[in-house]
Amino acid sequence: MDKPVKLGLLGLGTVGAGVCRILQQNREVIYKRAGTPFEIAKILVRDPEKQRGIEVDPRLLTTDAADILEDPEIAVVIELMGGLEPAYQYIHTALDKGKHVVTANKAVIASHGARLIRLAASRGVDLYYEGSVAGGIPIIKPLRESLVGNRIEEIMGIVNGTTNYILTRMTQEKADFTDVLAEAQALGYAEADPAADIEGHDAAHKLVILASLAFQTPISTHEVYCEGISKITAEDIAFAEHFGYTIKLLAIAKRQPKGIEARVHPTFVPNRHPLAAVHGVFNAIFLRGDAVGELMFYGRGAGDLPTGSAVIADIVDVLRNRKRGSHHRVETLWQSIPVEAMEDVRTRYYIRLHAVDRPGVLAQVAANFGAEGVSIESMIQQGRGQDQPVPIVFITHEVEERQMRASLARIATLPSIKDIANVIRVEGGLR
Amino acid sequence: MDKPVKLGLLGLGTVGAGVCRILQQNREVIYKRAGTPFEIAKILVRDPEKQRGIEVDPRLLTTDAADILEDPEIAVVIELMGGLEPAYQYIHTALDKGKHVVTANKAVIASHGARLIRLAASRGVDLYYEGSVAGGIPIIKPLRESLVGNRIEEIMGIVNGTTNYILTRMTQEKADFTDVLAEAQALGYAEADPAADIEGHDAAHKLVILASLAFQTPISTHEVYCEGISKITAEDIAFAEHFGYTIKLLAIAKRQPKGIEARVHPTFVPNRHPLAAVHGVFNAIFLRGDAVGELMFYGRGAGDLPTGSAVIADIVDVLRNRKRGSHHRVETLWQSIPVEAMEDVRTRYYIRLHAVDRPGVLAQVAANFGAEGVSIESMIQQGRGQDQPVPIVFITHEVEERQMRASLARIATLPSIKDIANVIRVEGGLR
Repeated sequence: MDKPVKLGLLGLGTVGAGVCRILQQNREVIYKRAGTPFEIAKILVRDPEKQRGIEVDPRLLTTDAADILEDPEIAVVIELMGGLEPAYQYIHTALDKGKHVVTANKAVIASHGARLIRLAASRGVDLYYEGSVAGGIPIIKPLRESLVGNRIEEIMGIVNGTTNYILTRMTQEKADFTDVLAEAQALGYAEADPAADIEGHDAAHKLVILASLAFQTPISTHEVYCEGISKITAEDIAFAEHFGYTIKLLAIAKRQPKGIEARVHPTFVPNRHPLAAVHGVFNAIFLRGDAVGELMFYGRGAGDLPTGSAVIADIVDVLRNRKRGSHHRVETLWQSIPVEAMEDVRTRYYIRLHAVDRPGVLAQVAANFGAEGVSIESMIQQGRGQDQPVPIVFITHEVEERQMRASLARIATLPSIKDIANVIRVEGGLR
Repeated sequence: MDKPVKLGLLGLGTVGAGVCRILQQNREVIYKRAGTPFEIAKILVRDPEKQRGIEVDPRLLTTDAADILEDPEIAVVIELMGGLEPAYQYIHTALDKGKHVVTANKAVIASHGARLIRLAASRGVDLYYEGSVAGGIPIIKPLRESLVGNRIEEIMGIVNGTTNYILTRMTQEKADFTDVLAEAQALGYAEADPAADIEGHDAAHKLVILASLAFQTPISTHEVYCEGISKITAEDIAFAEHFGYTIKLLAIAKRQPKGIEARVHPTFVPNRHPLAAVHGVFNAIFLRGDAVGELMFYGRGAGDLPTGSAVIADIVDVLRNRKRGSHHRVETLWQSIPVEAMEDVRTRYYIRLHAVDRPGVLAQVAANFGAEGVSIESMIQQGRGQDQPVPIVFITHEVEERQMRASLARIATLPSIKDIANVIRVEGGLR
């Protein structure tokens, strides 16, 4: 019998407790699958006295990271603290000392992934991060290993459960954003400070990780165009329904001739598209490869056990590699492709205006779209307001964002236009 | 530069040509990802003169399998002939001679998988078969590697594109089975002899492969209960819609206390279940793990390039292992769990009867259900027939198949019952 491999756990919050719970519950099958016995030898916590609802030998707990990072007996470090610092420093130190690292930390991988991947390669150790995107859904491994025959053409992900829950409830109840947000906060589906979720920053982190793998090139979070869901109204939801769409917050990356598009924004998704059927807190990643065609991976994007499931898979992968000395099996970043400016992105648009209800207004608006090369696919003008501004809604054909912005700048100056209430991009044409 | 690894290809039909096309198209990225150069050194074909629509050096073609199987220079054999024989013998010989094997052959893996897996392990070589189930969808690798922290509780798959296409068209057009089958045959979506697809045998093969991996136990095709879609009528489709369901041919495997359920049959799937949104020739595998919760993998279940994508991934995996001497990384079958008899399966049922329209009939039927412990969840009796038999439709609560059969045997003898027109199982309750 081999001597058990020693693991050090950094953090015992939601995901850390989930990992311990899965290891307790499914110890036998996991050992069998790893081909090697292993044990958690030390756990870094802030407060050793805290009750966590799981049984952990108190002698394993430490408040000093050095007890793990400096222990030559610990071969694998599992980082589940979250946040950039000190998590990044700990991961860096662990790799530098020749320890394998498994992490579920999207902020660290999105911000420092390329550097850490190079460090791991130079030390001949593994860095795995399946849990950093979309919780329990296997997506990092499929991208690194199952889709190697493909050039990925596009990825579109619902990778933030909070915003998908809010948009799903808005759709079901024809409710406004603020009401549903309050409800989501009361139920614990949204944080007291929900900005990272609703402004799309969390999704942007995940997009960086996915797109870097899909296109084998480092991408920075600040290169991702990012727009949240707080401007979506019940009216937008109703118009989406009218035109046969569902509004989702999508993280989108596409390969274009001159570079990569990377953007997070609310999106009209056709109802027949598989992403339109992803409801509530569920996540899904849709992608298209030149060989495989359309694929979608669907599941629970967060939670102690789902994310724990991804972390355990990474641990077992490390141990399988360790048994055979086959670390660093997979090459991931070897290109350097620029990210396109948002102005260069081509897509379709939904535009909701308020206009004075007067003959000739539509012709004026249409002329100004046309002057910038924007062509209209469909239009709806609902109701007649007696001297009240009425909504006019357009869905356009594909056009450059630059042209769209120019046409809207013109239209905003028309005296008959009260305001441009919302502009939402339209994606998901199926071949 | 390493010397290129030599691959031998058995078969150059649809999938073989797809593999060659992907290798031509994406050679650079695939070499990079494999970490090793490789080349197809020989291709077994029946007719070297046949036009295949791809460029292949005619000097690579051979009609003698020994040119590949007996060539010590060929390290990896790619079997893409399909059918049980001679494919099985060729795979067996290749493994026995210490060659790695990649195959997309569901019949061979379903029938002889356990034996071949043991042989590969004893020779220290790899046997990969991602392309054998659901074309381009990564499902074998996720089961073997990404879900190792889980006990899989159930798998439900739409794994046959032909039947899903037919059921989708029947649903869209309210059409009967025979009309849509003819149309599918005309379009090339169904074979001239469609029995293997429409009777569920193809799906049963795939279920055997999936369930064996999910539960780590060998399962035989003849242990799978199998029922096709040819009895489904437009009337069943309409009643499904009425109750909020979609009819799908599902391949189902569940872990139960006494064994494993393994069955293929048409199924009422609730419209809110993600499998209900899988249309046309697309495939999807839904599963539930005790840690990860619900997952679904969706994509193209057949075709030259999608299946080729899976084959390429396996080839790259073998080459990555080869570079590091890490073959046989993953243990798969180590248990022996019995398959439950169909009579022991518990599920819900849709039952469509024709009864004489006379007071008291419903009470009689209900009494006979009740006598065998079958309890009714909902019922609908549509229209009133003047002396014509009228349809009565029931959806039951969960009950043992044994009890259902006993109650139907009783009901069939009632003088007021003209016939039991259809019985379709109901699955997909979401937690």
